[in-house]
Amino acid sequence: MINKAIDFYFDFSSPYGYLASTRIEAIAAKHQLVVNWHPILLGAIFKVSKQAPLTSFPLKGDYSLKDFERSAREHQTPYNPPNPFPVAAIAVSRAFYWIHENTNPEISSLSDRFVHAVFKAYYVDGHDISKPDVVANIASSLGLDTAVLAEALGQQVVKDRLKQAVDDAITRGVFGSPMMFVDQEPFWGNDRLEQLDRWIQKGGW
Amino acid sequence: MINKAIDFYFDFSSPYGYLASTRIEAIAAKHQLVVNWHPILLGAIFKVSKQAPLTSFPLKGDYSLKDFERSAREHQTPYNPPNPFPVAAIAVSRAFYWIHENTNPEISSLSDRFVHAVFKAYYVDGHDISKPDVVANIASSLGLDTAVLAEALGQQVVKDRLKQAVDDAITRGVFGSPMMFVDQEPFWGNDRLEQLDRWIQKGGW
Repeated sequence: MINKAIDFYFDFSSPYGYLASTRIEAIAAKHQLVVNWHPILLGAIFKVSKQAPLTSFPLKGDYSLKDFERSAREHQTPYNPPNPFPVAAIAVSRAFYWIHENTNPEISSLSDRFVHAVFKAYYVDGHDISKPDVVANIASSLGLDTAVLAEALGQQVVKDRLKQAVDDAITRGVFGSPMMFVDQEPFWGNDRLEQLDRWIQKGGW
Repeated sequence: MINKAIDFYFDFSSPYGYLASTRIEAIAAKHQLVVNWHPILLGAIFKVSKQAPLTSFPLKGDYSLKDFERSAREHQTPYNPPNPFPVAAIAVSRAFYWIHENTNPEISSLSDRFVHAVFKAYYVDGHDISKPDVVANIASSLGLDTAVLAEALGQQVVKDRLKQAVDDAITRGVFGSPMMFVDQEPFWGNDRLEQLDRWIQKGGW
């Protein structure tokens, strides 16, 4: 028996995280599942997993840059190579948890839209999502009070929440983006969406 | 227009190379293509691409070991976790090129079978393919003269041929195993076989 959610771990600065984010909800809905978004920071995780950004490696980096675009084209996903890249997704990730876990349901209900709005800002509209004014503009477009959000982003409890999310992800074995869990079964990579779909369909193998 | 071959680069010591080797010929045949096998040595390539064996990384290594088996199970591919792992596939790779490019067609025609026999020896029957007697047994099972092969493996021209294959692969951008090319389009990973299939079917996108 499959549980009720797909846990979707990602870094906002990960192109494969973005690409998978545009398709995971349709896969989940097909199986009456919801998507739980878990923004994390690959920079922190790479320190544990001894990795480095994909594009920093000779040969593999060139392939990756080409593959981001090819993978987007296959599914007609809007994609403009981001620049600068990668960026620190700290503020947007903190903002996500503040929104998602807000005691005000009018705010917490915006978290799905916030994820897609951040990705669109970076991968479609070409905005640097590490900049405070870009974060504010995204929040504003969703009707959030940007002054309240800016104040929240400076709170220790909000900073700690993201740190906790990263620690929890590492404990669960997350080492890349996207990394998805169905029950406790991990799937790493945008190129595993079809396999994840088959896994849910068959109830594993 | 798609050309007549899929170029399949792999290290005999790569589980994903093995898994893909069991399915690539059916995909090729579907499109009236042949498979050109290109054994390479990831150890040499990793020096250029600044990589290391997948299983050597924290978190990612554990996932990989689990995923080798899960990926095998999905397609009912026989797979026993190899031990020792990884091994140096130098001798078997040299043997491949000596067989494949042999001027005696009775020998050169055995190269496809040799690839599968080596993979089976390592991933199904549990033999250490880095050992000379294992290589000899595989060759013998195909009807090859093991004394002639052993003598050939010591020749500089045979050693140089593998070195050339590795250099050519790097020039082409190969950084992992399996890595497949259709025309000049690269696809990296066992989990890209379906995408490769779609690419050929559609003539790209």
